[in-house]
Amino acid sequence: MSGRLAVIGLGPGDARWLTPEADAVLATAEAIYGYGAYLDRVPTRPGQARHPSDNREEGARAAAALSHAAQGAHVAVVSGGDPGVFAMAAAVCAEIEAGPQAWRELDIAIVPGITAMLAVAARVGAPLGHDFCAISLSDNLKPWEMIERRLEAAAGAGFVIALYNPVSRLRPWQLGAAFERLGRLLPASTPVIFGRAIGREDERVEVTTLSTAKVIAADMATLVIVGSVETRIIAREGRTPLVYTPRAVGGAGL
Amino acid sequence: MSGRLAVIGLGPGDARWLTPEADAVLATAEAIYGYGAYLDRVPTRPGQARHPSDNREEGARAAAALSHAAQGAHVAVVSGGDPGVFAMAAAVCAEIEAGPQAWRELDIAIVPGITAMLAVAARVGAPLGHDFCAISLSDNLKPWEMIERRLEAAAGAGFVIALYNPVSRLRPWQLGAAFERLGRLLPASTPVIFGRAIGREDERVEVTTLSTAKVIAADMATLVIVGSVETRIIAREGRTPLVYTPRAVGGAGL
Repeated sequence: MSGRLAVIGLGPGDARWLTPEADAVLATAEAIYGYGAYLDRVPTRPGQARHPSDNREEGARAAAALSHAAQGAHVAVVSGGDPGVFAMAAAVCAEIEAGPQAWRELDIAIVPGITAMLAVAARVGAPLGHDFCAISLSDNLKPWEMIERRLEAAAGAGFVIALYNPVSRLRPWQLGAAFERLGRLLPASTPVIFGRAIGREDERVEVTTLSTAKVIAADMATLVIVGSVETRIIAREGRTPLVYTPRAVGGAGL
Repeated sequence: MSGRLAVIGLGPGDARWLTPEADAVLATAEAIYGYGAYLDRVPTRPGQARHPSDNREEGARAAAALSHAAQGAHVAVVSGGDPGVFAMAAAVCAEIEAGPQAWRELDIAIVPGITAMLAVAARVGAPLGHDFCAISLSDNLKPWEMIERRLEAAAGAGFVIALYNPVSRLRPWQLGAAFERLGRLLPASTPVIFGRAIGREDERVEVTTLSTAKVIAADMATLVIVGSVETRIIAREGRTPLVYTPRAVGGAGL
């Protein structure tokens, strides 16, 4: 039997965002690897081995899963959201590139999922309705100066910005520094959205502006979207406001 | 009965990418509005009215759906991919902002979906594995000079770039111009991925480099991903290569 590794996106917390493809591939896996909190979202099935690991062990987890698949097994690795966005698919590819020839001969399948920024955007309207970018604020994986340069390039050119990994226990100041840096380029009234634990019972969404964003609490389960100068807030009586970025810039076209 | 409008992402062409939430909301809609080719992907259900319209009538379609919902109906508007990414959710928000007060009092739900760049990325590995942006190449909706400025800002700052709407019958030269512009900032060996009709029977994926990208055919059903200087291609004998952007830049961290 030839080995097979599937890297599967579970989507954000709500099971109604798990695609039928992801569900079908999970059902046929002989072993599942993943961060414990993500594995807990996968129903247990008889005869299926589960290998939870810590959040910061992506490389070792990918290598263990590849090694298992190379023995001829059908193995799954799970990510929250989409596996290709700041997640396990890149870790698996990096291990394949550095690993033994046999790993290049495996069947590799990436199963996409709803990534966090799409779910947060959906909760408030369409803040990602025009050109946007996604930046990881973790300076474990790149120098902080590079993050600042990317924030400035994105805001200066008019992109809406989705911030992944805004805060962790060991990275308490980076989000505030990012708001400070963006505040030099964008109006104080620029819409900012905090989406925490989207699709889970403790979900929380807050719409604010750049001038007051720094007082909103964020953590590892939070995704932040910073609008562009085009992004608009529509007030609605008795309802949360809608936030959207128009499809046309400056009244162009259509 | 209070009116309700759901803006629903169908995902790319494969029905296995339609989320259970999208399927459930579609099942309860009394009327469905959308571009004809997307409506054709929704199973017909007894008693459910269908209102197909042309691809370029987003504003009018959104207004018609809102007007229908304001009569107390449960109405759905469908988009391919995710409704919040260059699609109907922003059109609906714009019509609400410009429309009568009654439209602000409707229940509005945005149902996220797999957007095209995630599906194309999944087919080849993890090209969106680190910071990336999404740019619409349509200069119907913004000046071409702004598109050039955003391409240069993104490539210069090290973002991987997903190009939506790269080509249409009336916009034949923009993609070539974008490659030419990016070629001034990025190495000729930069990986470029063309994904056409992903998840449909006529799906086609091609991995090339910036120096030869201009000879690959693209159309309205194509999404193009241009790598960064960090993006890598892993050759595999007898298989399509893997393309990925490492999670860590320049060997930082982990």
